[in-house]
Amino acid sequence: MTVAPTGPRFADGPAAPVLGGVVPPVCTPLTPEMEVDVPSLERLVDHLVGAGVDGLFVLGSTSEVAFLPDAHRRTVLETVVKHVAGQVPVLGGAIDMATLRVIEHGRAAAGAGCDGIVVTAPFYTRTHPAEVEAHLRQVAAAAPVPVFAYDLPVSVHSKLDPAMLLRLAAEGVVAGVKDSSGDEGGLRALLLALRDEGTSGFSVLTGTELTVDSALAMGVHGVVPGLGNVDPKGYVRLYRHCRAGRWAEARAEQERLLRLFGIVDAGAPARMGRGSSALGSFKAALHLRGIIDCPITAPPQIPLDAAETERVRRGLAAAGLL
Amino acid sequence: MTVAPTGPRFADGPAAPVLGGVVPPVCTPLTPEMEVDVPSLERLVDHLVGAGVDGLFVLGSTSEVAFLPDAHRRTVLETVVKHVAGQVPVLGGAIDMATLRVIEHGRAAAGAGCDGIVVTAPFYTRTHPAEVEAHLRQVAAAAPVPVFAYDLPVSVHSKLDPAMLLRLAAEGVVAGVKDSSGDEGGLRALLLALRDEGTSGFSVLTGTELTVDSALAMGVHGVVPGLGNVDPKGYVRLYRHCRAGRWAEARAEQERLLRLFGIVDAGAPARMGRGSSALGSFKAALHLRGIIDCPITAPPQIPLDAAETERVRRGLAAAGLL
Amino acid sequence: MTVAPTGPRFADGPAAPVLGGVVPPVCTPLTPEMEVDVPSLERLVDHLVGAGVDGLFVLGSTSEVAFLPDAHRRTVLETVVKHVAGQVPVLGGAIDMATLRVIEHGRAAAGAGCDGIVVTAPFYTRTHPAEVEAHLRQVAAAAPVPVFAYDLPVSVHSKLDPAMLLRLAAEGVVAGVKDSSGDEGGLRALLLALRDEGTSGFSVLTGTELTVDSALAMGVHGVVPGLGNVDPKGYVRLYRHCRAGRWAEARAEQERLLRLFGIVDAGAPARMGRGSSALGSFKAALHLRGIIDCPITAPPQIPLDAAETERVRRGLAAAGLL
Amino acid sequence: MTVAPTGPRFADGPAAPVLGGVVPPVCTPLTPEMEVDVPSLERLVDHLVGAGVDGLFVLGSTSEVAFLPDAHRRTVLETVVKHVAGQVPVLGGAIDMATLRVIEHGRAAAGAGCDGIVVTAPFYTRTHPAEVEAHLRQVAAAAPVPVFAYDLPVSVHSKLDPAMLLRLAAEGVVAGVKDSSGDEGGLRALLLALRDEGTSGFSVLTGTELTVDSALAMGVHGVVPGLGNVDPKGYVRLYRHCRAGRWAEARAEQERLLRLFGIVDAGAPARMGRGSSALGSFKAALHLRGIIDCPITAPPQIPLDAAETERVRRGLAAAGLL
Repeated sequence: MTVAPTGPRFADGPAAPVLGGVVPPVCTPLTPEMEVDVPSLERLVDHLVGAGVDGLFVLGSTSEVAFLPDAHRRTVLETVVKHVAGQVPVLGGAIDMATLRVIEHGRAAAGAGCDGIVVTAPFYTRTHPAEVEAHLRQVAAAAPVPVFAYDLPVSVHSKLDPAMLLRLAAEGVVAGVKDSSGDEGGLRALLLALRDEGTSGFSVLTGTELTVDSALAMGVHGVVPGLGNVDPKGYVRLYRHCRAGRWAEARAEQERLLRLFGIVDAGAPARMGRGSSALGSFKAALHLRGIIDCPITAPPQIPLDAAETERVRRGLAAAGLL
Repeated sequence: MTVAPTGPRFADGPAAPVLGGVVPPVCTPLTPEMEVDVPSLERLVDHLVGAGVDGLFVLGSTSEVAFLPDAHRRTVLETVVKHVAGQVPVLGGAIDMATLRVIEHGRAAAGAGCDGIVVTAPFYTRTHPAEVEAHLRQVAAAAPVPVFAYDLPVSVHSKLDPAMLLRLAAEGVVAGVKDSSGDEGGLRALLLALRDEGTSGFSVLTGTELTVDSALAMGVHGVVPGLGNVDPKGYVRLYRHCRAGRWAEARAEQERLLRLFGIVDAGAPARMGRGSSALGSFKAALHLRGIIDCPITAPPQIPLDAAETERVRRGLAAAGLL
Repeated sequence: MTVAPTGPRFADGPAAPVLGGVVPPVCTPLTPEMEVDVPSLERLVDHLVGAGVDGLFVLGSTSEVAFLPDAHRRTVLETVVKHVAGQVPVLGGAIDMATLRVIEHGRAAAGAGCDGIVVTAPFYTRTHPAEVEAHLRQVAAAAPVPVFAYDLPVSVHSKLDPAMLLRLAAEGVVAGVKDSSGDEGGLRALLLALRDEGTSGFSVLTGTELTVDSALAMGVHGVVPGLGNVDPKGYVRLYRHCRAGRWAEARAEQERLLRLFGIVDAGAPARMGRGSSALGSFKAALHLRGIIDCPITAPPQIPLDAAETERVRRGLAAAGLL
Repeated sequence: MTVAPTGPRFADGPAAPVLGGVVPPVCTPLTPEMEVDVPSLERLVDHLVGAGVDGLFVLGSTSEVAFLPDAHRRTVLETVVKHVAGQVPVLGGAIDMATLRVIEHGRAAAGAGCDGIVVTAPFYTRTHPAEVEAHLRQVAAAAPVPVFAYDLPVSVHSKLDPAMLLRLAAEGVVAGVKDSSGDEGGLRALLLALRDEGTSGFSVLTGTELTVDSALAMGVHGVVPGLGNVDPKGYVRLYRHCRAGRWAEARAEQERLLRLFGIVDAGAPARMGRGSSALGSFKAALHLRGIIDCPITAPPQIPLDAAETERVRRGLAAAGLL
């Protein structure tokens, strides 16, 4: 596995998970003409890697992957892999409706130099659990790099079956899971089952921004927080507190970040969807912090207006980020 | 609009709908190597056009569009447009997650010669009604050919707002709607509102296979039945009975087709999803009828086994199609 | 079966369905003190029976059954059964979460003199199809009168399995189904399967207000339109047109009723739920027509304000009902 | 508030939450004739109170409240309140579809001597957030004892709005919330907002069985674990470890309980719903441990068979409970 040499931020023994730590899903800065803003993306990468993150996840939901044409996706992959230059592992989302399309994205990501790819269950289709498993097996068989399963019911409208994940983990078909299902009890049961079954070398990452200390206390290996774009140093501190067992400090840091997370509600729900508001607030924050040139999001997302952007600014100020 | 010259199968006056009649969504035959089976696709086109259908819809859900890579999609578009050679209008599905990706598919379809494109609401994303409307407006503004809205909640997990459709119809932004929502009361309210508002030139097509006579009695202009692949002559007869007011004959024909539709349950629900069973049964039927060379469906769909295929064969026999 | 002597409005042979025709779900007029307004309820019964309806369904969703305490329910049952005095059959909803509670309601309804009871799948609970079937069988075994299954996914969050309905129909466990699922294709498949299997004496009623002519053309035996409270004569005319094969007249009448149905949108969606708006508009209409004394709905429903009530008045006027 | 004198198991100052600690939702033992098994229920109460729990919650989902007629509910309330005799506070579920029905249940619970009642959003109805808020306000205004909001989307199909909860908490309308939504990030945001706004005297209880240590670390005041019926001593130990900051011991205890929780999957998903399996396994465990006489659950739930019961027995043995 190509992730292994660079990936592990911490080792629990000979069969450590291939990836752990803080692995932010990287926003995709755009120009007003809706092209990828390469210089801004490079600055964002510097902002994240410079903060001490352990890996990057490009072309995930937070990256607006669903909105980006393939040429944009390629630009993102090439820009980030080249700019990171091996300092940390890079995962690439291979997000599409079904197997053959996902395989193509996976090959593009691996070809661009990603250390692993991230794959959801099929969507748009009406998929049986047996088909989800076939999908992950077929994608993994065709992928030149390790595959991470992406559990994202809010987007794909099905939940990955834990028994299937255990099976694919034990067989080495998938290298890890990014759990954004919000089911913390289920996540913990998975972690315990992996341990009880002696399955090693499998990374469990959580997509939560709000319960990182809990998740690490349960035994997850890494976190993939969208808000980590805005405050990567905060998440790195939080992670290190947890690894060192400083739970009170971790809780205080997590609570500061939780308050900061309030920026995702900046956009009025009467005018726009939750996605527009959350992604718009991340980009507004990156713009206000001087990291990206333009806070625009891809269509058909509704942009934040001036008053909504001001709410983001106040959130940043309250968190000590301006 | 490019559909107009060839499209209308019937005229209600100077501002007739741009498209009506029987417009089957065309299955995509595949080879065992998962390439588009061009000769089989051409035979399928002949089978449909020869039966007297009024148009073809390629790259819809029944075409396995979600499973097909872009190169496959291009092959389908080029093959069908060329082989049809203007005998009937061809609509092309521009099915993808969000606006910029959909615009690219729409341009490819128009470039290949399609007479219109078919566009759903965004999916995978969490989309606000205002964003759905922005999406359709932006896609229509960028499309060289008329846009038909595709209402498909089972796949995209949102329903198109009727007030929005009326607005887009009145402004001429969209040329029609393909309603696969299953909400017949809502469809009828839409038809009545279009009439009461004097909006003309807007095509209302239904995706139902089972209530075609009802839908035509309500005033829809055309039908897009997946089962029309298997028995296009049946749907053409049904349509003509309805247009001529032969409701008893229409009902008998519809009931025969409803019984034939039982083949979609051939696949065991314990083994596969409804999609695998339905698309697998259509392709098995086309294979058993000698129209396509191979009944295979794209991964990760589960293929019908021999016993399940036998159920399809019996369904065909009972319908007098073998 | 106690329904049989009075029920059939039309006969298709020796084993006619036990109930058919127009069977409105009866609104429950309330006093400002939230008691059942008995004189208003009696006037409403007269309004409906006098219009020529074929049966009454009390304590359904349109009756606000979910909002009414058991004492209110008893008052409704006793008032209506006594006031109807055998002129038409009366069905009583036995709406509650699970079996033992439903059995109690069923006994109360039968004890009050109802000719049949109407029963949904369990709700609030997480119920397996096998449990839904067990529920219907146990309720039917305990009920002194025929049981009608009520298919209402919008409220109970599961759909009745058609194969189960066919089984229960063939065995005589249930006497009919009230289908409010909105799945017209599935309804038609059920009707055809009942016919093909030779199952007789089973009533298929649809809850639609908007596609009554279609449903009757498909073969349903009766309709249960909430809007029938407001314009029972319209639905009786519509039904008679259909039974006589006057499809053009039926369509015109259905379209008039469809326009009238627009009153259900009187309430602003920003202020209230669809239920509040729909039930509030029916009661406002009955109040404006002078049939009930007070348009109030049970808490926590939000009442229509003056402007919203004015929209109902305009809808009535346009339909020729004021 | 009547809970206050007996309720608080720990004090955080002058405005401590009215209730905290371990508050199991009490199973309802039944006889083979489907009556409440009073002696078994009394033994179960002794089992729980003797283990050191801080309160009891009767007539919740785990108590099969949805399945129990009102007379059964009254027997449960009276039996438990009398048998507890003030040793710990008792909450009673007032679970029904809408306001007037819930108010009646609330009065029955208060009349029987409960220290508080637990109330969900309306269900079966289609309810707007404004209607949910009106419902809670009206129920609280009518209730003689404090009201706890019950957030249970899996049963009522809507989630309580956090802003509403904060409003009702600040105004003292509700005394607490039992969160069974599974949204741990949202729960934490609520806890933080309550603290930041200085709202005191409001109890936040979680329904989780699997992340009790995390939830207590975040600041919840109490836990309501269904599995606490089976192993109340385990949850009491877990709670005490957390309150004392013994996080490693807490984690070990939580993981033991998580493994024990595997009994809820004893029932085959092909034969029964998740509810039947979970409630059936709890009762089977209580029967195997000699606490209740009969493991039967109320209809239409499917009972565990011998092999499934054996799985429960093995789970108990592995957890050291036999």
